[in-house]
Parts: sequence; C-alpha cells; structure tokens
Amino acid sequence: MPQLGLLHGRAWASLLGQLLRPPRAVCMGAVHSHSQVAEAVLMSPLKSHQEKSNFIIKTPKGTRDLSPQQMVVREKILDMVVSCFKRHGAKGLDTPAFELKEVLTEKYGEDSGLIYDLQDQGGELLSLRYDLTVPFARYLAMNKVKKMKRYHVGKVWRRESPTIVQGRYREFCQCVNDRRILDGMFAVCGVPESKFHAICSSIDKLDKMSWKDVRHEMVAKKGLAPEVADRIGDYVQCHGGVSLVEQMFQDPRLSQNKQALEGLGDLKLLFEYLTLLGIAEKISFDLSLARGLDYYTGVIYEAVLLPTPAQTEEEPLNVGSVAAGGRYDGLVGMFDPKGHKVPCVGLSIGVERIFSIVEQRMKTFGEKIRTTETQVFVASPQKNFLQERLKLIAELWDAGIKAELLYKNNPKLLTQLHYCENMGIPLVVIIGEQELKEGVVKLRSVASREEVAIKRENLVAEIQKRLSES
Amino acid sequence: MPQLGLLHGRAWASLLGQLLRPPRAVCMGAVHSHSQVAEAVLMSPLKSHQEKSNFIIKTPKGTRDLSPQQMVVREKILDMVVSCFKRHGAKGLDTPAFELKEVLTEKYGEDSGLIYDLQDQGGELLSLRYDLTVPFARYLAMNKVKKMKRYHVGKVWRRESPTIVQGRYREFCQCVNDRRILDGMFAVCGVPESKFHAICSSIDKLDKMSWKDVRHEMVAKKGLAPEVADRIGDYVQCHGGVSLVEQMFQDPRLSQNKQALEGLGDLKLLFEYLTLLGIAEKISFDLSLARGLDYYTGVIYEAVLLPTPAQTEEEPLNVGSVAAGGRYDGLVGMFDPKGHKVPCVGLSIGVERIFSIVEQRMKTFGEKIRTTETQVFVASPQKNFLQERLKLIAELWDAGIKAELLYKNNPKLLTQLHYCENMGIPLVVIIGEQELKEGVVKLRSVASREEVAIKRENLVAEIQKRLSES
Repeated sequence: MPQLGLLHGRAWASLLGQLLRPPRAVCMGAVHSHSQVAEAVLMSPLKSHQEKSNFIIKTPKGTRDLSPQQMVVREKILDMVVSCFKRHGAKGLDTPAFELKEVLTEKYGEDSGLIYDLQDQGGELLSLRYDLTVPFARYLAMNKVKKMKRYHVGKVWRRESPTIVQGRYREFCQCVNDRRILDGMFAVCGVPESKFHAICSSIDKLDKMSWKDVRHEMVAKKGLAPEVADRIGDYVQCHGGVSLVEQMFQDPRLSQNKQALEGLGDLKLLFEYLTLLGIAEKISFDLSLARGLDYYTGVIYEAVLLPTPAQTEEEPLNVGSVAAGGRYDGLVGMFDPKGHKVPCVGLSIGVERIFSIVEQRMKTFGEKIRTTETQVFVASPQKNFLQERLKLIAELWDAGIKAELLYKNNPKLLTQLHYCENMGIPLVVIIGEQELKEGVVKLRSVASREEVAIKRENLVAEIQKRLSES
Repeated sequence: MPQLGLLHGRAWASLLGQLLRPPRAVCMGAVHSHSQVAEAVLMSPLKSHQEKSNFIIKTPKGTRDLSPQQMVVREKILDMVVSCFKRHGAKGLDTPAFELKEVLTEKYGEDSGLIYDLQDQGGELLSLRYDLTVPFARYLAMNKVKKMKRYHVGKVWRRESPTIVQGRYREFCQCVNDRRILDGMFAVCGVPESKFHAICSSIDKLDKMSWKDVRHEMVAKKGLAPEVADRIGDYVQCHGGVSLVEQMFQDPRLSQNKQALEGLGDLKLLFEYLTLLGIAEKISFDLSLARGLDYYTGVIYEAVLLPTPAQTEEEPLNVGSVAAGGRYDGLVGMFDPKGHKVPCVGLSIGVERIFSIVEQRMKTFGEKIRTTETQVFVASPQKNFLQERLKLIAELWDAGIKAELLYKNNPKLLTQLHYCENMGIPLVVIIGEQELKEGVVKLRSVASREEVAIKRENLVAEIQKRLSES
C-alpha cells in the first residue's frame, strides 16, 4: 500500500509561531480593516441600470477585496506556508475553480447545501469547488497517480452565513498538503453505525455548544438512547497525551471494538513518530474532536492557537482552528473505474483565519506596511526635466533596479520627496541643470537627508552597493 | 487630472525575450502536455451516480489541471511578470472570483454572452469575473481611489469554444497593470458613429480573416456603404512608426476630424516617450488594430511575438497576441454615484499563451523540470533505521534545509538512491550502524557519487556550505 508523507507537525507549529510573533521590519503601518472594505457601499446611477433599479456597488456577500496592504500580509503568510511545504518535498498542483457538479455531489454530508452551482447555460452542469481535497482525489483517479506529496494554494467557495470579523468568508483560501496512513477514531465513541454521521455532526458542535445542548440534540432530535449519549459524554470529556491512548487500550468497552483498537494502535504509532520529531507535547488526543466532512476515514486533527503569556495585553480573537485535516482513504476510489483505493491524508491551513489574527496583531502594535518595493525615486527640482527623468529611470530599470517617478511634467521637489517618505522609498536620485552640466546626479538618503554627487556612469553601481548594505 | 504609470514597454519586451530564450538550468525535463491531461477521461462507477448515469471523470470543458511540472513553468512565468510590475512600483490587489451580476452587465459588448452566471440559490445574483479590469474599476469607485498603479494576478472565466492547443481556455490567468492617459484612435477609420461597435468587431477579426471577407461582412451583414468600407480598407493596411503618425496628420480626411487629431496627437507624444525609453523601434502604429471590448476609449495595443532567426528550427506556434490592453477612461465613472471619471490605462498579459509557447519550446529542447526543491535526502542501507532517519531529518528541517525520506520502514538503499536521481536531489545523507557507532554520517553527492564521513554535529554547516557553493 503506498504511503505518503504527512506534513510534519513541527513544521507548521513553527510556522504559526513565527506568524504570531510581533511583526518586524517588513511589516510597517496599520493594515486596513477588511470589514471596512467589505462594508463600503456606494449608490450608483449606472447608465444601464438606472431604469431597472438602484444598484449598490459592493462585493458579493461573504467576499471582499484585498487592498495592497492586505495583499502584502497575505503574501507573507502564503510564502511561509509554501516554503514549509517545499521544505518537506511537496509538489505544487492546480485545478480549475469549478468542477463537474457530479464530482462534488455527496462528498460533504450536511454541508453539501453550501456548494455554489453555476447556472445551466447549455453544456455541462458545473459547481464551484468547495474544498481542494475532492478535486485532488479527482485528479489522482483521472491520472492514475498512486503516490504524491502535493500542496495546493487556491480559493474555495462556500455559501455560509459569513461572520467576517472572525475570518469566515464565503470565498477563502486554503492550503492542503500531503497524504499518509493511520486509522479511524470515531468507533471509540460507541455510536450505533446507522446514526454515525448524524451523531458525528452533533459532536462537531462541541466547540460552540455545551455538552448539555449537544446531548439534548442527540437524544431529542436524533433519537439516541440517553445511556448511549451519556457514555459518549464520558469519552468526549477526555483529552490528553500518549498516556490517554494507553488508558483507552485498557478501557473495557473500547478494547472490545476492532475499529477502536485499530485507531488506537495507529494513534500510538503517531505519538512515537511525534516523539522522534520532538513535538509530542504539542499534540493532544481529544475524544471530542469530530470534523464535519463525510470523507474522513481515519485520524483527524485540528490546530488551535493558544495565547502565550506575552499576548495577554492583546484583545482576544477567537477564530477557531487555524488548520485541520485528516485521513480520507475512500475518496479517490469513488472516482476510479475499478474502485482502486489510494489512501490519503492531508491538512488544510485556514489562511483567512491566520490573516485575521496577523491583521489584529498588526493593528495592536501599530505596525506599518510598505505596499511597493520601490528602491529609488527619480526627481528633479526644475521645470522641463521630464525627458531627463525618463532617460535616467530607463537606465535604472534596465539595471533591474525598482524605480519610480511622478507622472507629471513639472512636479514640485517637495511633492516628490513627500511621496518618497509616504511610500517608504529609501533613495532619491535628483537631476537638475547643474547636475546635467557636470555629468553627475545627486543621490539622497531619505532617512538621513544626506546628499552626495555621483558621476552618472557610477550611479547604478553605487545604488546597488547601498541596497546590498541596507 | 491624475495620470498613472503605464507599464514601460521595454520591461515586458525584455520579459518576453527572456521567456523565449532556451530555458536554462532551472528547467529540466519534458513538460507534460496539458492537452494530454485535459483529455484524459475515466469511466467511474461512483457509488452515488451508478443508478443515475455513467459518469465521465474529467475537468470541465475548456479547463485543465496544472501538473507539478506545469506549475513550475507557470510560477516561473508569473515570477517574471510580477517582478517586472514591482520594478515599476506597482501594488498588488485581489478581488473576489465572482461579482454581482449587474457589475459585469453591458461592459463587454458582443462578448457578454460568454459570462458564466452562478445559479440563483437565494440571495444575490452573481457572475464569475470575465476580466480583471471591470472588478478593478468597481474597486476604484467603491473605495474612491483616484490614483493607483496596481497589478493583479488571478483567474478569469469565459465560456468560449476552447482551442486548447493554441492556449485558449475557458479558465485562464491574466495580469493587468497600471493606468495612464492618451486618446482614441478608432475615429480615424471614418466609420459612421451608429455602426461604430459593429464595424469595430469586424475589424477585430482581421488577424484571422482576409480583408475581403471582413469587407463582405461589413457591407453585406452590417450595411456599411461599399465606398466607406473601401476607405477603411485603405487605412487598415497602414502600419509603421512615428513617420506614419506624421503622415496621418497630413491626411486630408483625418486632419479634419477632431477625435482623430486628438488620437494622433497623443500617439505622437507616446512615440516621444518610447524614444526616450529606447524602445520606439519595437512599436508599430497599426490602423487595423481594433480590440473587441466595449470599454476602451483611447489608445489600444497588443503585443505579438516575432520569430527570431534562431527559432527557425522550431515548430511554429500561433497563439495570437501575448499581451494587450488600452485606455478605458469611462469605466470607473459608470460605478461612481456622481459619475466622476478616473482615467485608466492598462494591459493584460496572456499567461496561458506564454505558457503554451514556453511549454512548446521546452518540448523542442527536451528540457527537464524539477518539481520539488528538495536539497537533501536522508537514507539508510540497513533495516530498522526509521527512527534514526526521522531524528536526522528533523534536525535538517529545523535548520531550514529542504529534506525528504522514503515513508517506508525498510526501503532498499538502491531504491532510495534512484529516487534522488529521478527527483534531481543533489545530496544524500546516509546513516547506518557503523556511522551511528562513530557519531558520523556519510554525505554523498548524487552527481559525482563521492561519499565523505562527516561528524554529526558538523552536518548542517557542511550541507549549507555545499548548497551555497552550488
């Protein structure tokens, strides 16, 4: 049976740790609040719509634009995530935003109603992808791939009632990576098999509802015998480390159940590996963890962020889990003509949720963000110097230097210098009549306001020297 | 009036130049043909579909998966494009994949029928974005932004009849960047204003149809007077440089037309700037260029690739233009409540088309591609060394080194070394009983097959040294 690599837990523990440290040099300046963007509305007298209705200019419910400041933060997060995947030898993959509707049907249980369907405009019936896992399983079956460590960064869409402040959107980004083996854990709860999915959905609500309410739902609405519910109740309060796994091996009921024993055996092996990798103390065995989706067949997991002592002064931000996943050994076989199974295990990183946390932290710390990477600004103190500015900037661009100028014929010098300060551009090249006559330019440091004359032919080398030193 | 920077033509000319050189070290190995992937189909007895129908596993028409090899190529292309945008001071932006249907309505002329609508599932009526330009205009109006140099990389969707071999897809990626000013060119054709859009669409077909056929369409189908068609015919055969602009200023008909004079005046100014930037000879003034979309109001342009003498041995690949754009001064005002205009100019880079060309070239040159970035492989020649391999690889991962091992208890050494050769991994760390006893590991170069013993505590430093040298 092919076994494929699970993304090593320490890797994203360390990733998240980095994200949650106060942001440093590269992130400067308050991040725009996304809810501000998402809620901004304008009445528009669109020519073509005037007769029909008054039309509000906005993004669709549950979606938002990402401003340049937000893009910088998101790209920083994604860079970290992707470099972590690459460090573990994963390959990139991309699939279309929509799939044949039938590919997604009956893969998500109670959540299937949240799938966005495309309108029937002739041709195929299509739906927007709901996660990156089902398209991945479809890809594996379609290309008869038996072994692959892949990561995938892309948007998915769900018609949820959005709670924007908590980082839940109808359109969001997730990263899934990797596959390997372990075994089931839900049999240990002792739920009758016919009610398994229904009870699983109830247990999944324990992070939002009290045990009393969940028990009521199971007994009154889902017809579970009260004594079964209570037995479940005893288990779902348990959480601990490898010693809890050992304890469950001794449990008189569980140790009689083949599925539970298989699950416990694989959990024990998992804890051995976690110990070798030095991260066993970061993992808790939690019998109340259920996960909503239908396709899981074995181990399941979620990552939650625990506040560190240093974070006590911050406003608490409850975003739920920031990463989650599990084993889905049956999904690829559903797409294969002969039903050949390809065991898979993976995880999804909640990029939007991490984004919300980072954004919140940056607000707290009042950090600034540069939205461009411009290194040099080309300015002139005199009128009629557009031509010289253009020739000069063409030299810089050709040398690979990131450079800007103002697109005006005769901007004031002060306007040009203010632009540099606002945008965080470190260097200014100034050219005027005197400089042109002498074959030099002035190179100015925005921070120190020092200016030196540099021979035109030495300019690129001097700029590259200064940039490499900073 | 705010003027914003047009992406400097030389920049992407040089970009494309780089793309079309034979690929070097980083790209090794034949790229999978995408049509192969897109056309692969499997019959699937999906449990839930068995009763309903026989279901073909495939991606939707006009879409495809990108394999790991293809992802490497696409990311290389996008890195080049984005670094070019950043060199010119552009900021990133992202918008949702779908917009309110009304945002897209009546922006695209004859092409509007190609928009994908989402099914009405209660709530808002939505459509998948058709380009990145209209969402950008919506963003500017919604946030009252008057000045911005932005780039945007993202997918757009069009219900076209796909011609996959030529790089045309229903889902594709485009990059639009930047905005600035010039003025209209279509008035110079002398078309009656009421038929302007219809005739524009005909002229747009001149790259695929002969003048004779286009003329027939204009006269027989669109009711244009034959003498007007012939006059247009005289113009649309003209193409040249700045001297053609000067010549058109002297044209007895054109010089009487206010709009044409404005367009010519701005073209003249454009050629002045192009000369200062040293790229005037790369630009041709072509009176047959029309562009399909409704929202252009001034200068329009397309970039086509001309084969170089060195490319004569290759199979020709006609993908049409690889980048295109123009001025759209009216679009933002359509979304603004008071109709305030924000003049914009931009361009879109046809990433899928460039991808097709690069893929074709790589096939021709038989280049290989690495799909992972793994630097070190951890191997053992003996049985029961999984624990030691895991401890060793955790050390490497913690040091930020990209490392892999085989997920098997007792893989054969030859299997492990073959994996390194297949995947292009340069270094192998080998640990066995002897090494464990002596506190060393063997470090092997896959290319030279040389092995040296290294003290365990010096391993990370030695690997980092070798990687920095290579």
